[in-house]
Amino acid sequence: MKTRMESDSIGTMEVPASAYYGIQSLRAKNNFPITERKLNKEFIISLAEIKKAAAITNRDANFLTSTIANAIINACDEIICGKLHEEFIVDSIQGGAGTSANMNANEVIANRAIELLGEIKGSYNVVHPNDHVNMAQSTNDVFPTAGKLTVLKMLPKTIAELQRLYNTLKLKSLEFNNIIKMGRTQLQDAVPIRLGQSFNAFASMIKRDIERLKRAEKDMLVLNIGGTAIGTAINVSPEYFHNITPNLRKICGLNLTQSNDLIDATQNLDCFVSVSGLLKTCAVNLSKMANDLRLLSSGPKTGFAEINLPSMQNGSSIMPGKVNPVILEVVSQVAFNIIGNDLTITMAAEAGQLELNAFEPVLFYKLFESIETLQNATATLVDNCIIGITANEVRCKELLDNSVGIVTALCPYIGYQNSADIAKESLKSGISVKELVLAKGILTSEELEQILDPNLMTQLNSSLTIESKEKINQAI
Amino acid sequence: MKTRMESDSIGTMEVPASAYYGIQSLRAKNNFPITERKLNKEFIISLAEIKKAAAITNRDANFLTSTIANAIINACDEIICGKLHEEFIVDSIQGGAGTSANMNANEVIANRAIELLGEIKGSYNVVHPNDHVNMAQSTNDVFPTAGKLTVLKMLPKTIAELQRLYNTLKLKSLEFNNIIKMGRTQLQDAVPIRLGQSFNAFASMIKRDIERLKRAEKDMLVLNIGGTAIGTAINVSPEYFHNITPNLRKICGLNLTQSNDLIDATQNLDCFVSVSGLLKTCAVNLSKMANDLRLLSSGPKTGFAEINLPSMQNGSSIMPGKVNPVILEVVSQVAFNIIGNDLTITMAAEAGQLELNAFEPVLFYKLFESIETLQNATATLVDNCIIGITANEVRCKELLDNSVGIVTALCPYIGYQNSADIAKESLKSGISVKELVLAKGILTSEELEQILDPNLMTQLNSSLTIESKEKINQAI
Amino acid sequence: MKTRMESDSIGTMEVPASAYYGIQSLRAKNNFPITERKLNKEFIISLAEIKKAAAITNRDANFLTSTIANAIINACDEIICGKLHEEFIVDSIQGGAGTSANMNANEVIANRAIELLGEIKGSYNVVHPNDHVNMAQSTNDVFPTAGKLTVLKMLPKTIAELQRLYNTLKLKSLEFNNIIKMGRTQLQDAVPIRLGQSFNAFASMIKRDIERLKRAEKDMLVLNIGGTAIGTAINVSPEYFHNITPNLRKICGLNLTQSNDLIDATQNLDCFVSVSGLLKTCAVNLSKMANDLRLLSSGPKTGFAEINLPSMQNGSSIMPGKVNPVILEVVSQVAFNIIGNDLTITMAAEAGQLELNAFEPVLFYKLFESIETLQNATATLVDNCIIGITANEVRCKELLDNSVGIVTALCPYIGYQNSADIAKESLKSGISVKELVLAKGILTSEELEQILDPNLMTQLNSSLTIESKEKINQAI
Amino acid sequence: MKTRMESDSIGTMEVPASAYYGIQSLRAKNNFPITERKLNKEFIISLAEIKKAAAITNRDANFLTSTIANAIINACDEIICGKLHEEFIVDSIQGGAGTSANMNANEVIANRAIELLGEIKGSYNVVHPNDHVNMAQSTNDVFPTAGKLTVLKMLPKTIAELQRLYNTLKLKSLEFNNIIKMGRTQLQDAVPIRLGQSFNAFASMIKRDIERLKRAEKDMLVLNIGGTAIGTAINVSPEYFHNITPNLRKICGLNLTQSNDLIDATQNLDCFVSVSGLLKTCAVNLSKMANDLRLLSSGPKTGFAEINLPSMQNGSSIMPGKVNPVILEVVSQVAFNIIGNDLTITMAAEAGQLELNAFEPVLFYKLFESIETLQNATATLVDNCIIGITANEVRCKELLDNSVGIVTALCPYIGYQNSADIAKESLKSGISVKELVLAKGILTSEELEQILDPNLMTQLNSSLTIESKEKINQAI
Repeated sequence: MKTRMESDSIGTMEVPASAYYGIQSLRAKNNFPITERKLNKEFIISLAEIKKAAAITNRDANFLTSTIANAIINACDEIICGKLHEEFIVDSIQGGAGTSANMNANEVIANRAIELLGEIKGSYNVVHPNDHVNMAQSTNDVFPTAGKLTVLKMLPKTIAELQRLYNTLKLKSLEFNNIIKMGRTQLQDAVPIRLGQSFNAFASMIKRDIERLKRAEKDMLVLNIGGTAIGTAINVSPEYFHNITPNLRKICGLNLTQSNDLIDATQNLDCFVSVSGLLKTCAVNLSKMANDLRLLSSGPKTGFAEINLPSMQNGSSIMPGKVNPVILEVVSQVAFNIIGNDLTITMAAEAGQLELNAFEPVLFYKLFESIETLQNATATLVDNCIIGITANEVRCKELLDNSVGIVTALCPYIGYQNSADIAKESLKSGISVKELVLAKGILTSEELEQILDPNLMTQLNSSLTIESKEKINQAI
Repeated sequence: MKTRMESDSIGTMEVPASAYYGIQSLRAKNNFPITERKLNKEFIISLAEIKKAAAITNRDANFLTSTIANAIINACDEIICGKLHEEFIVDSIQGGAGTSANMNANEVIANRAIELLGEIKGSYNVVHPNDHVNMAQSTNDVFPTAGKLTVLKMLPKTIAELQRLYNTLKLKSLEFNNIIKMGRTQLQDAVPIRLGQSFNAFASMIKRDIERLKRAEKDMLVLNIGGTAIGTAINVSPEYFHNITPNLRKICGLNLTQSNDLIDATQNLDCFVSVSGLLKTCAVNLSKMANDLRLLSSGPKTGFAEINLPSMQNGSSIMPGKVNPVILEVVSQVAFNIIGNDLTITMAAEAGQLELNAFEPVLFYKLFESIETLQNATATLVDNCIIGITANEVRCKELLDNSVGIVTALCPYIGYQNSADIAKESLKSGISVKELVLAKGILTSEELEQILDPNLMTQLNSSLTIESKEKINQAI
Repeated sequence: MKTRMESDSIGTMEVPASAYYGIQSLRAKNNFPITERKLNKEFIISLAEIKKAAAITNRDANFLTSTIANAIINACDEIICGKLHEEFIVDSIQGGAGTSANMNANEVIANRAIELLGEIKGSYNVVHPNDHVNMAQSTNDVFPTAGKLTVLKMLPKTIAELQRLYNTLKLKSLEFNNIIKMGRTQLQDAVPIRLGQSFNAFASMIKRDIERLKRAEKDMLVLNIGGTAIGTAINVSPEYFHNITPNLRKICGLNLTQSNDLIDATQNLDCFVSVSGLLKTCAVNLSKMANDLRLLSSGPKTGFAEINLPSMQNGSSIMPGKVNPVILEVVSQVAFNIIGNDLTITMAAEAGQLELNAFEPVLFYKLFESIETLQNATATLVDNCIIGITANEVRCKELLDNSVGIVTALCPYIGYQNSADIAKESLKSGISVKELVLAKGILTSEELEQILDPNLMTQLNSSLTIESKEKINQAI
Repeated sequence: MKTRMESDSIGTMEVPASAYYGIQSLRAKNNFPITERKLNKEFIISLAEIKKAAAITNRDANFLTSTIANAIINACDEIICGKLHEEFIVDSIQGGAGTSANMNANEVIANRAIELLGEIKGSYNVVHPNDHVNMAQSTNDVFPTAGKLTVLKMLPKTIAELQRLYNTLKLKSLEFNNIIKMGRTQLQDAVPIRLGQSFNAFASMIKRDIERLKRAEKDMLVLNIGGTAIGTAINVSPEYFHNITPNLRKICGLNLTQSNDLIDATQNLDCFVSVSGLLKTCAVNLSKMANDLRLLSSGPKTGFAEINLPSMQNGSSIMPGKVNPVILEVVSQVAFNIIGNDLTITMAAEAGQLELNAFEPVLFYKLFESIETLQNATATLVDNCIIGITANEVRCKELLDNSVGIVTALCPYIGYQNSADIAKESLKSGISVKELVLAKGILTSEELEQILDPNLMTQLNSSLTIESKEKINQAI
């Protein structure tokens, strides 16, 4: 392999002659052989967008010549278009607070710019990774800024999938609106509910997740770019300081602002912890819903069997005909993963010291994974599960008719204790609640029809008036 | 001990004759001998407020006679004033989704109301725990509602302490505004910062916590009261349904509303997970700040020693004269506890099934503990630590003068590589950066004075202009 | 209130004249108003045992006079017997790495010893908290040692409850040995299992927990007492160093040893993290079992209803006759709490710095809570749930007969694909598997009887031989 | 692209004609587009080893013809040698309890066996994925068994790296044995310690991790293979049942055994939770050590600076000459990740229901990641950090001489209170402890020399005898 020699403060090293990355990327690759997982694609693009904005800003402030600046800008554009990503060789989990990722970008961009200017890679006197590409920047402002940009690009896709989920659940709630079934609390028979109400409740829950994540997005818009090393804006000219964020805003098409306290914005990562906490909350909701749907579809013969999930694949290598709730299971697993990631993110943020948090790389790695897998899991949940759910109306009615939970509706008329006695007797004897009440002559058949109408039990019931109660109470 | 006999669906049981609680409370106490910790005081009061609002509403709708209703209301008022709390005997961690806590309230209120009506305790035909006190309610709506009311009462106190912390940090940031010291990233010498900037960054961070927690408060205002058993409003009259929340609003003085989807609001606990996630975020910030302050005050002789903490107590049983950062240490421990609580809360919420979450008791127990200990830790942090912090100005200057980190400011003038060489040489030889640059004749003494002025390095420096750079670059 | 004046390095302070605690305890109480929860009772006793052992050792080495030593020993014995515990006023969560707890013990013991010697409390020239009671000790060795002793006393009780749980599960597995029911994987009908096998599997699982916790106990036997300040044994005489552990061993009746590396044993808390991790593992198992039992007892009419739990209390304030799995629910909540505690413990251990971990107080607080609540939850689980479980044999048989999962047993004879087709057809048509196979003339009625005997499917089936298969395969 | 048609219970589907995987793998790939991360390499090999062992066992029991069995065995051998891994297309996080992974293996092996027998891929009448490759197996026993085999292969490599770490720390402890420095508790000056003692304490700590992980390995040796669907051994002949584990033992070279309770071993995953808990404990230790080393190497000018880490890469893109503790930082991040993974693993295990845990895929994914990244981080820690650490002996001595912590050694001679007064005075005045004591005429210069010899303070000091104390006490 042809190589070129590069040097840094540590010494010299051979780099493949064809490589756009340089010595610092290579050292980092060797120092951190941890996960074999490269930087997130959107994160690489965000780095390039920042470098492009910086080059424009420095050029316009006359700190960079147009020649150098334009070469840098063109190199960045290539990366933004998806090229050269394989030159980002550093591991997602890396020491150094992101310096390796930043220098990997600086080196790739410098070498590509050098090439565009007709020189050979490694000619850092033409375009220098630090002095030109990283001009007026520090890893300390570039890295968190790139992290926020990445979240801002990924989160809307996840929110869009959650919105699709919401829409689908709403559709289902309409479809199942007239299917009355038994509600269960603590897995014990409770009182009637309509299946549509259950799906509507899922939808209401997801709606809150969407709103929370949208609020979280706003917290991501405040950047520390321009703060350089520790947020004091060392080595930054006023022109750059004031124009870098507007320029970045234009490039990204996002409503970005510069923090009022760049020192705070450089060292504290609570905004990421907060976002992760909301992703975790959403994961909790999705997992709860997945559990419910697995319970409702349990069976086909020995479970609740109130709904059917679409069959997506053979369920067993040994048990023929078995179909499992595989999509729901993957959703729960993604939820568990997001909850675990939230802990890693929490610990990484908590471990920050003084003017910088050195543990951003693992924080970003897990945060991006949480956002992406939430999006992916939600998409397959909608398309391969929710949309195809059907109801077992007959089964729902059968279970409802069979249960004694409707006895609750008698309380306002005959009191808790009498109702409890009837429930107990019905369960023991197998005689239905209705028959027992009639046999006791407490209420007329007509009254009972109305009181025990399960449909009326599933909504605010205007027949429960003081008059109705009094009439009956007098009769007792 | 004199006793009375009580009975329920399970059987009969002796209850102390003097007890206001009844058989169901006693069974619960025996079933759940887990933590020996009783219900939170504010939670008991919230239960009484709900019972009072329900009695008013039922009375006004003519479902309860004025006699019974008023007796219930008076009993509730006593509890709200702090009386009878010792009659709440059930454990904080209990099975049954809170039914035991709710029945404990129902029984105590019923027996006190009976007493107020001149009858002896246990005469449930006079006032019945279920039929009268619990009228138009279910544990399923009472318990989560009481949880939200409790958070709404506790959280403002915690926010007030955080506000005091913010104010104190702001004061300190002014006090320390002119103390220049060395900034550190990754615990390695970086570039200068003013001590006031560090405290201002803490303040900015806490401000976000305050804002987040205030937003969270709003999510707590939406209640499921009126939904009864599973949110379908079974056994509730339209009058009650529409008036219970307004009545509760008046009693509590909080801007409460009834959820649009009571089924969702009954079964899903994500709003509590979200609040806990924000408490966790605040805990992360407090722990980070506590760590920083412990680092800055490390010493007195072998540490950073840039600041002094007030001495609060002897630091050691064996090492005389030792003073430790004890307040900061308790803050970190509270933070770890809140982070652990957040996990318990997350798991409890995730485990909900179908129409109800049976694990609310542990969720509330940990959530209330998080809010309260956050308040307590913040209070002692302000009063016994932050307010008394003093700066070691001499030490700060000494360390700053001694360091080579200021070499960063040379980059725009002589480039990254030259600056790095000077840094290396200075560290090795012990000769100061300034002397080395002068010796090399790169910059004049005057230029250096300005470039290496640490004060200018701590803020946006208008002297970094293209003219200044060009003049010097030509000279190199 | 009568008071006495006490002083320390910080200054002077009034202490109630009747108090056995002194100025340092009082300062700590004021500094740490966090949880209002005092030190664990067993922990207080452990502190007294250590102080007693130290006094004996120092006396025998002639560093303490018999008079002083014996007074200290007598004071310790009183605490060991349960007296004076209310004098331990410091909060469970405290800064200072346990110094406050240690000094609280030193002060109480000193003052009680002073009193026993006929002097008035506060006469520290008679018996001094530091110089005499704390002689040859440091919080750094006393506090972790007391923590380990406490675990060693509490854990056996928890293990004993787990052993009772194991025994009860084993009994149940025998009782239910002949009840065949449908097994479920992923909540979908799978293949037959005997109910006794399910309970036996629970027992096998708990047995591993018992073994793991017993192994963990051994790790607790290695102490750092004698290491004093940071494990270097400063201020300790050789006599004390070699005799303190044997003396403590005698007092506690535990097979204690002194660590070979006292510096390590002083600063690293991994042994507690490891114990907590095993408690967490046990919590996972208990929660899984609780979930299973709740599923199996779901109903009574709309769930699995294969088993009945004993009725422990009314299940609802609104739904008469409802009985809920309350004991199982409290077990799950305790499990969630233990898992959350494990996180707090993990973070506290991780945060240790250099020669000491300052976060032991919260670690111990949560660890003791985990052990105790595990014990309490297991006890109520055994007594109020497992022991009273009964089986619904008829229901089990009905569900089994109704299901198509037995088709799996056909695979070795007719292949996966044919079996799958039959399963599908049976589910669709409602015709039983047996009838379908017979109708197709694939197997004789006799052969089918044997192959589809659910009892044989629940154990290693010696009839599945190559001969049986071949005979049938030829017939197809 | 050329395709072939395949069908399953769901329907038919086009599969690339060249693919070894089949319809079920492809459905799974489409159903679970979650992480884009494929199955772990060692896990794929483990699956192949199980399939090979099953084919041997079935052949020897005459259930499989030699022709088919040998073709299967040869196909497995290819996979074991690293071939065909790209044909495993299913995602690491998948629903279905691992059925997709198992079927992916069955299909690849079947098609390769078909090919080896001269037929074209897809000719499942020649070799059938279920009937032949999966014969006498179920995902329920294959998947957990493969998980354990994978851990058993990976864990020894991790333990070996930890052993290297231990050895290196021991070497360093010898190298630094005579360097006396100030110990710090709670980041405050405490008493002297030798730097070698610090490294020895790290070594002692890691030794416990090694022992714990070795114990954990043993728990992995107990398999549920032979239990098939739910552990009842349905569809398994006695020959297979008794020979599968011995055959697997031979192939893997591991001391494997079959569980006594296969039903338990199939549904409960506590052994994995326990292993993960120990990995977490090790992560806690590594992170604590990394933190300590970062503290000790903080500086170079404004920190503790007692040790130097090897320079591995440029530390900053903006601050020239900065060298950061990058290896230690990556170790901490891996630790945070392992701790987060432990939570995901815990939740996945807890969520198991009845006869099976459907969440094994995410459990394995995270567990393998934890083991591998622990190995990788430890390796880079040893090679790129620990081995190159040097001590700043001069700095250590300087800080030690400067400190007042040595005052502790005076306690046995002049009491706690007098010592505290001297410490306070020394700190205030800047006069050394020694001078102050001499000035007060309490001890002679000779006595002081011995008492305040820091070297003696770092070990059990035989000069602290009753005689020495008495002599001096009399003098006071």
